Order: sequence, then structure tokens, then C-alpha cells
Amino acid sequence: MSLSSVRIYEVAPRDGLQNEAAVVPTAEKAELIARLMGSGLGDIEVTSFVRPRWIPQLADAAELVGLLPRNPTARFWGLVPNRVGLERALESGIGGIATFLSASETHNKKNVNRTIRESLAGIEEVLGVAREEGLRTRAYISCVFGCPYEGDVAPEASLQIAAKLLAAGADEVVLGDTTGMGTPLQVERVIALLADGGVPIDRMAVHFHDTRGTALANALTAWRVGIGTFDASVAGLGGCPYAPGAAGNLATEDLVYMFEQMGVRTGVDLDALADAGEYAAGLLGRELPGRYHQYHRGNRRRTASRAVSR
Amino acid sequence: MSLSSVRIYEVAPRDGLQNEAAVVPTAEKAELIARLMGSGLGDIEVTSFVRPRWIPQLADAAELVGLLPRNPTARFWGLVPNRVGLERALESGIGGIATFLSASETHNKKNVNRTIRESLAGIEEVLGVAREEGLRTRAYISCVFGCPYEGDVAPEASLQIAAKLLAAGADEVVLGDTTGMGTPLQVERVIALLADGGVPIDRMAVHFHDTRGTALANALTAWRVGIGTFDASVAGLGGCPYAPGAAGNLATEDLVYMFEQMGVRTGVDLDALADAGEYAAGLLGRELPGRYHQYHRGNRRRTASRAVSR
Repeated sequence: MSLSSVRIYEVAPRDGLQNEAAVVPTAEKAELIARLMGSGLGDIEVTSFVRPRWIPQLADAAELVGLLPRNPTARFWGLVPNRVGLERALESGIGGIATFLSASETHNKKNVNRTIRESLAGIEEVLGVAREEGLRTRAYISCVFGCPYEGDVAPEASLQIAAKLLAAGADEVVLGDTTGMGTPLQVERVIALLADGGVPIDRMAVHFHDTRGTALANALTAWRVGIGTFDASVAGLGGCPYAPGAAGNLATEDLVYMFEQMGVRTGVDLDALADAGEYAAGLLGRELPGRYHQYHRGNRRRTASRAVSR
Repeated sequence: MSLSSVRIYEVAPRDGLQNEAAVVPTAEKAELIARLMGSGLGDIEVTSFVRPRWIPQLADAAELVGLLPRNPTARFWGLVPNRVGLERALESGIGGIATFLSASETHNKKNVNRTIRESLAGIEEVLGVAREEGLRTRAYISCVFGCPYEGDVAPEASLQIAAKLLAAGADEVVLGDTTGMGTPLQVERVIALLADGGVPIDRMAVHFHDTRGTALANALTAWRVGIGTFDASVAGLGGCPYAPGAAGNLATEDLVYMFEQMGVRTGVDLDALADAGEYAAGLLGRELPGRYHQYHRGNRRRTASRAVSR
């Protein structure tokens, strides 16, 4: 059932940077994206079309998309919160959009101040228009594996939402472990429940956070039951709000290392990817949490100091 | 085939501390061990009986063992490099010893300046005497999943070594991923090869390092094929020589979190364990790499600052 090649959806430029206080210049974002593309990544979420003052880091969405290659080997994606955001996305010329809502009523309310039902109505409209306009679409469901406010989240809630999102035109639904609470047997159970409920396995993607260290084990488990699309962030970029150095997103390097060593093709060159992660760390001027990233960085330092000492 | 309860073998006081430059006072080591025991851990590797000047951090082995409870609920273990070390271990009154050698000829030579054959001869003698004296014994095999000097290591080499160690009286053999190169399908293959070759699954333990982020995914995989004993280090203590903050040992908290959430009993109280990890970070005065550890630490900081601001 496991696939011999997988698709990695890179989220660092959006999900990674949006928590960063210091605004990264647009040209440097474009350079990071170019390096990520250069490593072989085929899908990159580059920005968000939320209202600029909500996330100043991503206020340059249109300008950034304008800097990206017109005829790329990679497909670029932008997060879209509502109809106004969709219009900005369409104007920018971006190829794909991602909508979001939560499987937890409390989390959805805190995040966007709407009920799940209200969010769904808006998203269904966005997905419909995006499809008419020829955009690719994906739809995030947050808190599928647990909610920081509600604790357990019934997988049946995620199934109902996923079914509506697909019916409204989403190319894929993304099962998000927003605060990194998920564990492998649960991942298996939730995916099985959705698949049994009619969500095609090849239209599910997974988005794991490494808050409690389980992200890669969860990704492995999802792969074993047939999932083929994995979200990840270079160098683990995407800080957790809790602690400096604490983990956020699953690190792309770790995922690529595991898959490639297992003979599962990702299309990504690990060395080039690790260099892109190094570039990201340089942009932000601090240590990033990805394990392979830190290993790679340590090796580079050792090589450099050896070169100096000779 | 997977077990509903597992045994965790805690290595922080030895494998964790041995890489630390600043020597931790003996009484503080004893306090850390008491806290680890208090969380429910049943097996703790507390020190090493290598020649004191090799590892000054662990030169207090006999004194430390003397400070530990006489009639503990936990079993204490010490690393033993040779016959002289065994004599020191026996004098100390410790209950279990661990020997070590590498499945990679080059790594063994660099580590102990002996061939594998020479190491095995010495270890066979140590295991024989230890058994006669009524000690429990385990035997580490390093570099089972890859060698930083040789690259791939044939699993047949590990099988031959494991068979000899068991024949010489080791209660269990520990498959070590010394530099964190292993990935899940390989873990499956190596364990299957050893089991097919006559090594009982319940006499194999696994010892994973998180250098490239794969430790917990590897542990999950080992559990799925029937392994029941997992080495881990609280807070991920056990720095990698490469980079500050880089990962060494699999963090005990992450392992306990995953297993307990999956309904697999560890006998460990996660909150008490996380507090022990917090104590370890305090002893060393720096950030430690464990994911759950950092999450827990961040939560404590948030709670503390909230209490102050009220």
C-alpha cells in the first residue's frame, strides 16, 4: 500500500516565516524560494493573502509572487482566508491556493472568530471561484489530531468537514496536527476512518508538527497506510510560540533523509535542500530546530574550522 | 506482534553526561538519578567504569553508586570496558553491567584501539565473570545501522557478534545506532535478519540517536516488529559532538509520550519525567534538545510569567 515515490509540499516561506517577528526582505524570500525550488521541491507555499496588517511578515504577498519565475518547474501556493484574499491571490497570478479551518470548534473560534459552519460557507465559495478560475486548491483542516483547548477531537468531525471540502472543489484536504499532539496509532485510525468514509487516500495530505517529537514517526505511519503528500518546512522553520528553539513544523530535511534512505523517491536533492536550510538560518540569524539541519550545520562548521587550522 | 507494555532503559546519567565538559557534582548526579527513579524508570545506566582519566565526568563511579539507594525499585547499571572496569563495578555493588564494541571494524579500532576479534575476547571474559558474580549483563553493539567511517555496515556482522555475546552470557544485546544514520525500513530488515539468525527478539534492545531526526520513527518501527526494550535519555541529553543544540540520544519524554498516547504502558509518569529533565537542564545550565522537554519547559515559563504578571 505504501508508495515508492512521494510528494513534499514545502511550507517554510509561509507557515515558517509567519511566526517570525523580524520582517524578511522580499528579495531574500524570493531567494529562499529559488533555492528550495533548486533542490527539487515541486510545491511551495510562498505566502498568505490574509489582510496585510494581520501578518506584516507576509504583507508583501503580491510583490513576492511577482518576483517568482513565471514558468516554474515548481507550483507556488498562497494561503487564502476569504473571498477578499482570493481576489488578491488571483491578481497576483499565483497557481494554487490553500484555505483553512479547524476541526475543533473552540480553536476555529479563537483563530478566525467564526463557527466551523460559518467558515465552511466562506471556504466553499472560495473553492468554487478558485476552481472556476483554474487555480489548484487545497484545504487545511487544523487540530485533526487534538486541540489545545478541547483535547481530543472526534475524527468524525474531520470526516464531515473533509467530505464537504472535497465536494466544494478542493483538490486535496490536509490533515493538520496543529499543535503536535498526534501519535502513530491515532494517525492510522484517523486516516482509516476518513478513507472508509469516502475520502480518497490520494486526496489526503498530512501536515505534522514536531512539538512533542512525533512528527516523523507520524509521517512514516501515514506513508505506510498509503498517504502520498507530506507537508514540511525546511530546517523545521516555524517556531512554536512556547519556547525558543522549540519545534514547530516537521523539518523537510529529516523527511527527505528518511524517505530517500528507505528507497522512496522525493525528487529532492538533500544536499541542496540542506544548503537552502542553511540560507534560511542565515536570514533569521538564529538556530533553527531541524535535526538534519543542525547536523549539516555542524559539519559545515567543522569543515570550515579545519580549513582555517591547516 | 507489538507489545502492550515496554521497558525503557534510561541512559542520561552515563551516556548523556559523558560528553559534558563541566563536571557535575556527585550529589547532583545522585539527585538526578533519584528523580528519574521517582518517575517510574526501572533501569538506569548511572555511570561508567572506564579508567577515570578517560572520562573525568564519570571518575566518581564508585562514590556515586555508594550514594544510590541500597534496595531500589530500579536497577542500576554501569558501563564496563574491560576486566579492570569489571572489578571496579563489582566492588561498587552495582547490579548490572554493560559491555560495548562496534559492528564496524574501523569504528571499533578508533574507539578502543582493538580489532572486533580482540574486543570480543575481552568481553566474553567480562560477561562470564559478571554472570558468575550474579550481575545482570547487557552488551552494546555500536554502528549497527551505519558507520561514520565505513558507511554501510553489513547486518550479518551484527548477527555474528550478537550470537557470540549471547553465547558468552549477555542477558541482552543492544543494537546501537551510534551516529543516528538508521531509518525505519532498515531497522526492520536488521532486526528480522538477527531474529531469523537465532537472536531471540526478547533479548534484543534498541538504542537510537536522533542526529538526523529518525530516532522516534525507528523506535516505533522496532516496537512494531516486537522489540520490547528501548534506550533513551531524559531531555535528549547526550550532545552530539558536531554542533551545539544538535541531537544525540532519543529523548525519553518523547518515547514515553508516544507510547502512552498509543496505550502502550511504560510504567513512567510523564510529568515527573519531564520535571527530571528540567532538573537536568538546570544542572547543565543550557538548553537540551528533547522536543517534549522543550515544550514542557516553555509551558513552565509561560505559567511562571503569567503568575508574575497577575
